[in-house]
Amino acid sequence: MIERKDFKKRFTKTKNLMNQRDIGSIFLTPSADMYYLTGVWTSPLERLFLCIVPIDEDPLFVVPKLYEEQVKKTSWIENVRAWSDDSKITTQLGNIVRELQIQKQKIAITDSLLVKHFKIFQQSISNVEFIYTSEFLNHIRMCKSENEIKFIQNASKFAEKALDSIISECKEGKKEFELAALAEFEMRKRGSEGPSFETIVASGSNSSFPHHLTGRRTIQNGDCIIFDLGAKFDYYCSDITRTVCIGKVSSKIKKIYDLVSRAYQEAISNVRPGISAGSIDKAARKIIDEAGYGEYFIHRTGHGIGIDIHEAPYIHETNSTKLEAGMTFSIEPGIYIPNRFGVRLENVVVVTDSGCKPFTKFPTEMIFKS
Amino acid sequence: MIERKDFKKRFTKTKNLMNQRDIGSIFLTPSADMYYLTGVWTSPLERLFLCIVPIDEDPLFVVPKLYEEQVKKTSWIENVRAWSDDSKITTQLGNIVRELQIQKQKIAITDSLLVKHFKIFQQSISNVEFIYTSEFLNHIRMCKSENEIKFIQNASKFAEKALDSIISECKEGKKEFELAALAEFEMRKRGSEGPSFETIVASGSNSSFPHHLTGRRTIQNGDCIIFDLGAKFDYYCSDITRTVCIGKVSSKIKKIYDLVSRAYQEAISNVRPGISAGSIDKAARKIIDEAGYGEYFIHRTGHGIGIDIHEAPYIHETNSTKLEAGMTFSIEPGIYIPNRFGVRLENVVVVTDSGCKPFTKFPTEMIFKS
Repeated sequence: MIERKDFKKRFTKTKNLMNQRDIGSIFLTPSADMYYLTGVWTSPLERLFLCIVPIDEDPLFVVPKLYEEQVKKTSWIENVRAWSDDSKITTQLGNIVRELQIQKQKIAITDSLLVKHFKIFQQSISNVEFIYTSEFLNHIRMCKSENEIKFIQNASKFAEKALDSIISECKEGKKEFELAALAEFEMRKRGSEGPSFETIVASGSNSSFPHHLTGRRTIQNGDCIIFDLGAKFDYYCSDITRTVCIGKVSSKIKKIYDLVSRAYQEAISNVRPGISAGSIDKAARKIIDEAGYGEYFIHRTGHGIGIDIHEAPYIHETNSTKLEAGMTFSIEPGIYIPNRFGVRLENVVVVTDSGCKPFTKFPTEMIFKS
Repeated sequence: MIERKDFKKRFTKTKNLMNQRDIGSIFLTPSADMYYLTGVWTSPLERLFLCIVPIDEDPLFVVPKLYEEQVKKTSWIENVRAWSDDSKITTQLGNIVRELQIQKQKIAITDSLLVKHFKIFQQSISNVEFIYTSEFLNHIRMCKSENEIKFIQNASKFAEKALDSIISECKEGKKEFELAALAEFEMRKRGSEGPSFETIVASGSNSSFPHHLTGRRTIQNGDCIIFDLGAKFDYYCSDITRTVCIGKVSSKIKKIYDLVSRAYQEAISNVRPGISAGSIDKAARKIIDEAGYGEYFIHRTGHGIGIDIHEAPYIHETNSTKLEAGMTFSIEPGIYIPNRFGVRLENVVVVTDSGCKPFTKFPTEMIFKS
């Protein structure tokens, strides 16, 4: 669990940046940002669920009535106001905003704010300028504390156990969704809050879709299968991908896996503080380009990970963000041959003082099953 | 699976309404609306994933490169354009918009559109007015076809089996998350795409939070436990809630369950075509108000259900929407005594020509376990 003193530290850093950038308030809606600063987690809702963080005042929750007691109990923030399903939220928010004297200032909104909730803000508050929390909170959230690294480590252990189980169970005749079901059960029964994204079991030609939706296909001899899964623990995410082959495997698949594996190693060996995120992507891409498969590596090399499954720093070619110790992100090159097969290899790493360390020791070789 | 002819029907209805309301295009982003019209499902993404539906032209997908082949294969829509992680989406979208001559018109956006994607639209397209798809698509989506009712029926069967399993396993010493893990496994292994929302196992005083986050609490003798869960099947949702008591139960809990049960029955007996959604809420609320517990019934009586777990028609006091045969929604009164316990009873019903029919025959009585 995140402790109260951690929240205080996060708040101090945040308020410093607010001061530097002349930001008057943050309007947090359900998101990783909200959890990071308040400890309150909820999936995005159609009802407005808000935490106002003014620079000079204590933060204040404005939540649907049915969440009032829950927020009071789970957050370190004491000031909680409730609105009921039938009351006029625009009027209520207008009153609160007047009370807090929020006007003529810069307000930061979360990047995942829904347009319909943004309209409520626009109707309730006048004479303000809106910016995104990502413009300054990313900077704080990107470098993880020791505690945060422990959460990701725990989440990674759950993912590893799940991966291990489904590789054992993976054979001809099994359906994609049956393996996903088992993976999620293995994570959940150990105390994970659930998968950190929709578990991917992509078999046969489905493996040529990087984000295949796990379906009802039955696994066959000769299949190449991509397993991509992650668990949440204390709302921090893990993420791991391995490629498994069933029965007789073509030499082409083996050759391409070898290429992906070299790209992965090349990316990993380049990671260290001071180097740009973009250069990691370039290092992996160069290996694949030179072998003539560049057009089939159709996504970036990786993404930051923390409370969000995809967050800064994104490991793509044009990202000039300099890596720092404590940053956590995935390295996941892949090659996808349309209508035939795909292979991918992924670990999440944490940047250390001199290089990086993967969160898992799960073997990185291609896995063969009879 | 939804068939091509179903999509064509949905499109015809949609285009009629677009005509009536002078809407030039719909900009669909990942949502129930997108799935309803295109058959493409994806969770909300940080990358812009778009389907443009112009009134006089064929629809067109604009998706991240890594989804290109997948969308081509899974949707009936043939025109798919891709943008890569490193390209300028604003410029690309601007070109497409010029090509389609989208200007000086009304564009409908999905209610769940993120502000950051909305800004891309605003930068790429000038001289247009934005409205929400909910203003006209809700009208079509609210009344379900026979096929859609079958999907909800299947999803309800999965939820029922899961509920049955965890009630069997529920006893002193079990942790909340262990029961949620089992419930989700029972749904998933039968072919559900996953839970339709975060499974709620709220035990002891946690049951006083209507949307408790299932956690690590251990179940104790005397606990009142709310199980609220649902499965997705072909991306249609189910939803069911039952309250279970462990060991010796106070007479107060029994009395309050009886009250909630009467409110549920009263709501159900009022449902029929022509009556307003609001009057159903009022009927349930009256029973609870008159018994002196009105202040503890802190949410609306129900919500529509379909591809979204919460959609129109919302069963709240001020909703004047007239019910029609084929509408599907939950009836779920609850009473929550702060710091002590809560009880809730929920079924999803479909409106018939003369009344309504619940999707499940699961007993509605309180459940006692030793």
